[in-house]
Amino acid sequence: MTDRIYRAALVIIGNEILSGRTQDANLAYLAKWLNQQGIRLAEVRVVCDETSDIVAAVNALRARYDYVFTTGGIGPTHDDITVEAISAAFGVPVVYHPKAEQILRDHYKDRITDARLLMARVPQGASLIENAVSAAPGIRIENVFIMAGIPSVTRGMLAALSGTLAGGQPVLSQTVSAFVPESSVSELLLGVEKAHPGVLVGSYPVWRGNKVGANFVVSGINLPDIQSAVAAIAAGLTLQGIEPIFEEI
Amino acid sequence: MTDRIYRAALVIIGNEILSGRTQDANLAYLAKWLNQQGIRLAEVRVVCDETSDIVAAVNALRARYDYVFTTGGIGPTHDDITVEAISAAFGVPVVYHPKAEQILRDHYKDRITDARLLMARVPQGASLIENAVSAAPGIRIENVFIMAGIPSVTRGMLAALSGTLAGGQPVLSQTVSAFVPESSVSELLLGVEKAHPGVLVGSYPVWRGNKVGANFVVSGINLPDIQSAVAAIAAGLTLQGIEPIFEEI
Repeated sequence: MTDRIYRAALVIIGNEILSGRTQDANLAYLAKWLNQQGIRLAEVRVVCDETSDIVAAVNALRARYDYVFTTGGIGPTHDDITVEAISAAFGVPVVYHPKAEQILRDHYKDRITDARLLMARVPQGASLIENAVSAAPGIRIENVFIMAGIPSVTRGMLAALSGTLAGGQPVLSQTVSAFVPESSVSELLLGVEKAHPGVLVGSYPVWRGNKVGANFVVSGINLPDIQSAVAAIAAGLTLQGIEPIFEEI
Repeated sequence: MTDRIYRAALVIIGNEILSGRTQDANLAYLAKWLNQQGIRLAEVRVVCDETSDIVAAVNALRARYDYVFTTGGIGPTHDDITVEAISAAFGVPVVYHPKAEQILRDHYKDRITDARLLMARVPQGASLIENAVSAAPGIRIENVFIMAGIPSVTRGMLAALSGTLAGGQPVLSQTVSAFVPESSVSELLLGVEKAHPGVLVGSYPVWRGNKVGANFVVSGINLPDIQSAVAAIAAGLTLQGIEPIFEEI
């Protein structure tokens, strides 16, 4: 176990996300998977299907974070430009990966075509990420992980990576909530956060019908600290005549 | 009507999105609303509740795009740092906006508190965006629009902005689909895109039970060009013995 904090970024590639046509379903899943690996998702960028935009995002983020994940744009059609763009970001040529080619030939058999073999292309020097859901593998080059955009495939690729990445301690969190406007307890929350170094207190308002409330999410890496902060919030709520609820509302 | 393309970026501010706790629901809605205004959502960044990260994202994007929208972090608690951060990004002090203060006093009456008045703070020089859903207004400074994180409130603020921003022509799109692997029609799609300048052809694979298919989305600003490209894809599919379907699958 290490005290070092490992951080990752995600680049979501796709005009269909930016147009509002498709609702992203990878961010939240990746965030939780990363946390299980002891890695924090620290930044996300959504960029369009333009090489220069992908290159700029990947190069900015791979220099800054321990890991960069990309989703989208690795299929067999002309709008799938992720492999070319990430090759350009690394300044390496696009090559056919022999093992990826073999996987595709084994999968498609006599239905293999040049278009399908496009999915065997990788940036030179890359390795493969197993894809148990469909044929085309994911790709790793240095600290960049190139994943599918389709959530079921992305999840399969992440499953193949589970336990293989260096990480630190997962972030733990507990929620205490109350039917109170968060503005009525802002000083309490700030006081509890200040009194508990190493924990963060987030306040997220909710409306449940006509009832105003808020979830107070205490997070950190040390469970006793989190429990102590939750107890302090609950005690403070009770002092104000507000019933603490020990689950999300 | 102008040929100029207006572009916008979105900065989603919030640890709760990056932790996977909360699924963002503003991106797709904003994308579609922007398109109605003739503005294209060109980039999105999700950043954590850290001043330096918010400043970096807002300053990079406001220099690059016509408009920048932010969501999240404008409530009354200690983790709501968006106004301070954007003031820092512009190099201006945080001030209380008299009209915002009046709105909050009228809303809360004798329940007004210092914490609630925090929601009257703006970067110096900012104007307000009407909030018909709850009390605290949104904020505009130059080309940056500071919105709530709660989707119902964000939508109310966008409604107040409808028709007020300079824009160009909305992007139109039509979908033709088929139960065919996209890799079987990649050359057709590329050929149609090349033959129709000004339109983009996106290919989005789907699995419906055991059936493999794809939606082919043709987009552009000129409807006849789009219709012509859709007809060309449909004709090409038919030539390959594949039935075109004129709706999403």
